[in-house]
Amino acid sequence: MTTIETSRSQYAQIADLVRRRIADGTYPAGAVLPSEDRLADELRVSRPTVNKALVILRNTGEIKVRRGAGTVVRSLPTILRDAKKRYAARNEGSGAGEVEVSRHALKSSTTYREISQTTPPMSVAEILGLAEGEQALLRSRVLYANGEPIQIADSYIPWRLAEGVPDLMRENAGRGGSYGRLADAGNPVTRFAEDITVRMPTDDEQRTLELETTQPVFEICHVAYSQDRPIEVCLHVMTGHLWKLHYEWDDPTHEQDS
Amino acid sequence: MTTIETSRSQYAQIADLVRRRIADGTYPAGAVLPSEDRLADELRVSRPTVNKALVILRNTGEIKVRRGAGTVVRSLPTILRDAKKRYAARNEGSGAGEVEVSRHALKSSTTYREISQTTPPMSVAEILGLAEGEQALLRSRVLYANGEPIQIADSYIPWRLAEGVPDLMRENAGRGGSYGRLADAGNPVTRFAEDITVRMPTDDEQRTLELETTQPVFEICHVAYSQDRPIEVCLHVMTGHLWKLHYEWDDPTHEQDS
Repeated sequence: MTTIETSRSQYAQIADLVRRRIADGTYPAGAVLPSEDRLADELRVSRPTVNKALVILRNTGEIKVRRGAGTVVRSLPTILRDAKKRYAARNEGSGAGEVEVSRHALKSSTTYREISQTTPPMSVAEILGLAEGEQALLRSRVLYANGEPIQIADSYIPWRLAEGVPDLMRENAGRGGSYGRLADAGNPVTRFAEDITVRMPTDDEQRTLELETTQPVFEICHVAYSQDRPIEVCLHVMTGHLWKLHYEWDDPTHEQDS
Repeated sequence: MTTIETSRSQYAQIADLVRRRIADGTYPAGAVLPSEDRLADELRVSRPTVNKALVILRNTGEIKVRRGAGTVVRSLPTILRDAKKRYAARNEGSGAGEVEVSRHALKSSTTYREISQTTPPMSVAEILGLAEGEQALLRSRVLYANGEPIQIADSYIPWRLAEGVPDLMRENAGRGGSYGRLADAGNPVTRFAEDITVRMPTDDEQRTLELETTQPVFEICHVAYSQDRPIEVCLHVMTGHLWKLHYEWDDPTHEQDS
């Protein structure tokens, strides 16, 4: 560190230094960083300067504060969510999110928060075409990769489609998951649609997904159709910095071009 | 305002009050807000408290500081980007982004920043399968809705495909745009793929898109294929709070379900 640097460039430089140490393996993935005091001593800067540097890296998700562990280096890779493949894979026996996580050689796990009859949010009721007061089955779960939360998924199925299907009330709905059971009951999924927005997390999402207030989430409103009838809406809230979403499709107009 | 409130809830309450005034039309879309001093006087709170409240609304994009105008109420609706439709619409005569903007009854405009032969970023060169040092045509533009910047789009086409096609060097590439010209030259687009990530804007993107440092952007890496050969990569950087991305597809597995 030379003496001409302003305070602004000083903490940005320290952030860069920590980045280089992460890249070169001095601080490997998952490792606990030295305390702010120790870094300040070693680098001969003030503790607030170190703190500001670490805030930058926390905002981008390069490091993360884990309760009881301290500040650790990011250990998860970017997880690819291939929309077509994830739902096509459902007959392989695992949930779609679990398939994605496993594909990256990470250990996946799912915690169910709620499986119950409920009044869905207005936006969901509208998509499902529910009458006023009509209920839905809610299956709410959190998906983890190597123990770190990466997604909240709240799935809503019209109660009139779900009530005769006991497997839908279980965490493990059986082969092919919920869609398998809906198909058994005469409602095979034939089409999907997804709307993607980005926003800051709510307080609850921030706690559940272990995010900073400054870290955005993807929200995917996923709709499954049986012919033209919507039979499920699943709201996915996903840690923005951990995911890459992938879509592909054939171009219907290329005959016109050539 | 009662006297028991803490300072934290005070500025959050003022943010809510401004929100209600936006919702009820006291401050209509596009209107300039009263100055912080006037709001502080009217609401009998300190100016820093008003400032903190307005920062909340700036971060969510509910209000925006426009140079020379002051702080204005958001006037753009959420713009729907329907991936399949946007490219299918290209033979209608306008650019894909312009079609989306117009569909929302907004005035669209496009400013070209650069049309030139260039060395593409490594990530782009890799997708296009370019040899070391191989060049590409860059078409870089900013899309506006009612005069507000909403998207930067940098399109890269391998130079060997572009060099014989003079229309690709023009802002208006003619009917069907760049894809029309590539098709004329024997490279019809037959498939698209898109990867979506979310991140904070760079300094340049922040200035160009009139964002706060705290407002995330979508980055879409759009790839056009002619049969199995990638012939274009377009990097879209889009104001996160103004867009909703839409994808839909038929489910290939439903025969197995039923």
